Amino acid sequence: MPRTFLQTLPGPYRFYRGGEIPEVTFAYETWGTLSPAKDNALLLSTGLSPGSHARSNSLNPEPGWWEDMIGPGRPLDTNRWFVICNNSLGSCLGSTGPASTDPRTGQPYRLTFPCLSIEDIATTSRLLLKSLGIHPVAAVVGSSMGGMTALAYGVMFPFEANRIMSISAGAHAEPFAISMRSAQREAIRLDPDWLDGDYPPEKPPLAGMRLARKVGVVTYRSPVEWNERFGRKRIPRAPADPWATRFEIESYLDHQAEKFVGQFDANCYLYLSRAMDLFDLGDHGTSVVDALSKLRACRTGVIGVESDILFPVEQQHALAAALHEAGVESSFVSLGSTQGHDSFLIDYERFGPAVGDFLKD
Amino acid sequence: MPRTFLQTLPGPYRFYRGGEIPEVTFAYETWGTLSPAKDNALLLSTGLSPGSHARSNSLNPEPGWWEDMIGPGRPLDTNRWFVICNNSLGSCLGSTGPASTDPRTGQPYRLTFPCLSIEDIATTSRLLLKSLGIHPVAAVVGSSMGGMTALAYGVMFPFEANRIMSISAGAHAEPFAISMRSAQREAIRLDPDWLDGDYPPEKPPLAGMRLARKVGVVTYRSPVEWNERFGRKRIPRAPADPWATRFEIESYLDHQAEKFVGQFDANCYLYLSRAMDLFDLGDHGTSVVDALSKLRACRTGVIGVESDILFPVEQQHALAAALHEAGVESSFVSLGSTQGHDSFLIDYERFGPAVGDFLKD
Repeated sequence: MPRTFLQTLPGPYRFYRGGEIPEVTFAYETWGTLSPAKDNALLLSTGLSPGSHARSNSLNPEPGWWEDMIGPGRPLDTNRWFVICNNSLGSCLGSTGPASTDPRTGQPYRLTFPCLSIEDIATTSRLLLKSLGIHPVAAVVGSSMGGMTALAYGVMFPFEANRIMSISAGAHAEPFAISMRSAQREAIRLDPDWLDGDYPPEKPPLAGMRLARKVGVVTYRSPVEWNERFGRKRIPRAPADPWATRFEIESYLDHQAEKFVGQFDANCYLYLSRAMDLFDLGDHGTSVVDALSKLRACRTGVIGVESDILFPVEQQHALAAALHEAGVESSFVSLGSTQGHDSFLIDYERFGPAVGDFLKD
Repeated sequence: MPRTFLQTLPGPYRFYRGGEIPEVTFAYETWGTLSPAKDNALLLSTGLSPGSHARSNSLNPEPGWWEDMIGPGRPLDTNRWFVICNNSLGSCLGSTGPASTDPRTGQPYRLTFPCLSIEDIATTSRLLLKSLGIHPVAAVVGSSMGGMTALAYGVMFPFEANRIMSISAGAHAEPFAISMRSAQREAIRLDPDWLDGDYPPEKPPLAGMRLARKVGVVTYRSPVEWNERFGRKRIPRAPADPWATRFEIESYLDHQAEKFVGQFDANCYLYLSRAMDLFDLGDHGTSVVDALSKLRACRTGVIGVESDILFPVEQQHALAAALHEAGVESSFVSLGSTQGHDSFLIDYERFGPAVGDFLKD
C-alpha cells in the first residue's frame, strides 16, 4: 500500500529559470476534511529535508515531522482546516526531482534536471492544489525553505491565498547562510563517488553527504543549545575517525549525518540547497517592500527565533518591518527558543500558540 | 639569506599526550633590543595559520601579520619590549611539524608526528626562550590559538611570566567551534589526494584544504560584517563551479582558500586544528578557576570581540570572571569590532589601545 497520495500533473512544466520536464508527480498527504466550498485548505510547505509526512495518518502511522502541531484542537486544527503537505518539487521523497526517472530517456534526470528555484516549488504546489480543485487556498504556512515558498506563493499569485505564514525563513538568504550552504555543496562534489552527479543509486557519495549534513546541522541548531546540552562532554569509546576528538558534539553530528544520508539523494540536496541561495523576494518587484505590497489582500504572519543563526531574528524583524512598510496586514512573533533554526521542530510549547493564534479568526 | 632566525633545541622532546621526536627546530623573529638583564622579552604566540613574521624587519621587509601593532611607540612598543614571535611547534612555516623531515628516517613525519597539544606549543616556546637566555619572560601575548598558548604557558609555568594576555581566545573550545573544526578536518581527509596523510609534497589535497579553509573563514569573520560588505552582491562572470551561485561572498571565500592552500600543509593543519579542540585549561586543576589560580603572580589581560562567533564574547566574560574568582589581577576589554574573530588582525583602532594599555605600567 502506498504511504502517500500521488498526483501527476499534466505536463510539460517550464522552470522559472529555464528548462522544462515532461511531467511532475507529487507525493502529498492530508489531514482533516475539505469543506464542500473547498475554502478551508491549508498548504504546509516544508523545509529542505522533510517529506509530506507531517503527521501520522492511516496510510502511515509513523509520527510525522510536525506531529504535535497538526490534529483536532492543535495549532493546525483539523476540525477547521484541511491540511495538505506535499513533498517539494526537486526533492526525492516521492515528488519529481533529479533522482526521478526522466520519461523521455528512462534514466534518472540527475544533472539534466533544470535549475530549481523556490518559485518552481511555489508554482507546482499551486498546480497540485488546482488539480485537487482547491483554488484559491485559504492559507499557506511554511517553515525554513517552506517559509520562502509561502512568501513566493503569495507574491507570485496575489489574491490566491488568504493567509501567508513564514516561519524561520526570510525574503532571501544572507551571506553567512550562503557560505555554509555553498560549503555543503562543495563537500558533496568533492566526494569522488559523486561522479559529476552520475553515481549509481546503490553507491551514492556518502562521505560527502555526511560532511554536508554535519555542516548543515551546525546551522540548524544553536551554540547556546550546544553549550548547555553537550559542552565538552566526551564519549567513552574511541571514535572510528582518528581525527575526531571524542566529544559528544561530534558523536551527535555523526549520528545526524548517518540518519540523513540513508534517506536523501545527493543531487536533490544540491538542487534544493542552491534554490535557497538563489531565492530573492526582491526579484519580484523593484524592492522587497514593493514585492511584498502584492500581499495586501492577505493576512501575513512572521515567526522568528532569537537563537537562529541560519535565518537570524534580525532578518525576521526586517521582513516584518518590510511587510508593515508595504501596507500589508501582518503579525510578528520573536520566540526565545534555544534550539536555533530547528526550534519549530522541537519547541511546541512556544510554536504552538504562535502558529495557532495566527490561524484563528 | 634566511628570512627568519632558526634555533634547534636539544632533543628529544616528549609530547604532553605521549610520543617524542628527536629534536625541535624553531623559526622565530625579533623586534627591539633585549635588555642586559634580559627582563624585557615579550613572547608573541600566534594563531593557527600565521608564521613568525609578525612585522617587517631586515631579514624580511614584507609586512607582517601584526605590522601596525609592533614598533617604536606602537602597542607592542619596541622602545621598551624585546618582541619575539615564533612559528608554533606543529606548523609548517619554519618550525618542526608533521611536514618536517624525521631525522631518524629521512622522511617527513606526516602522521607519525605525535599528537600535538597546546601544552606542547607552550612548553617548546619556553624551551626556545630558555635557549636564548630568557627566563623568566616578561610577557606572553597571544591571539586565538596563541591566546590559549599564553594561558597554558602561565598555568603550566607559574612565576615564569609576569604578564599573560589572551586575545580572542578562551579556556577551551565550545561545541560550535569544535563542530566547525571537525568539519574542516573531515573535508581534508575526504580528499582522495590526502592519501591517509601520505600525499607527496607536490600533490597535496588541495580541494579538501580549500573547503576546510572556507569553513574556517566563515568562523573567522562575522555575519554582521558580511551583511554590510557583501550582502547579496553578485559577480558578473560565471564561476568555475556550476554549483556556486555567483555571489561575491563565494568569490571572496574562493580567494581566501586559494591564498591559503599554497602556503599551508594539510597534515599540519589537521594537527593544529585538533590541538585547539583538545585544549582545556580545566585539565590543569580541579576546575578552570583552580587552574587559573596559578596565575596569581601574574598580571593578566583578556580581550574579546562582540562579533566573534569562534570564541564568543560570552566566553571572554566567563574567562575574565574565572580569573577574578581565582584571585588573579586581571583586566577585561570587550570590543565592538564587526570583523569577528579576525578583528585583531584588522581593527587596530580598537586593538591598539586595548593591547597597549595592558602593556603599560
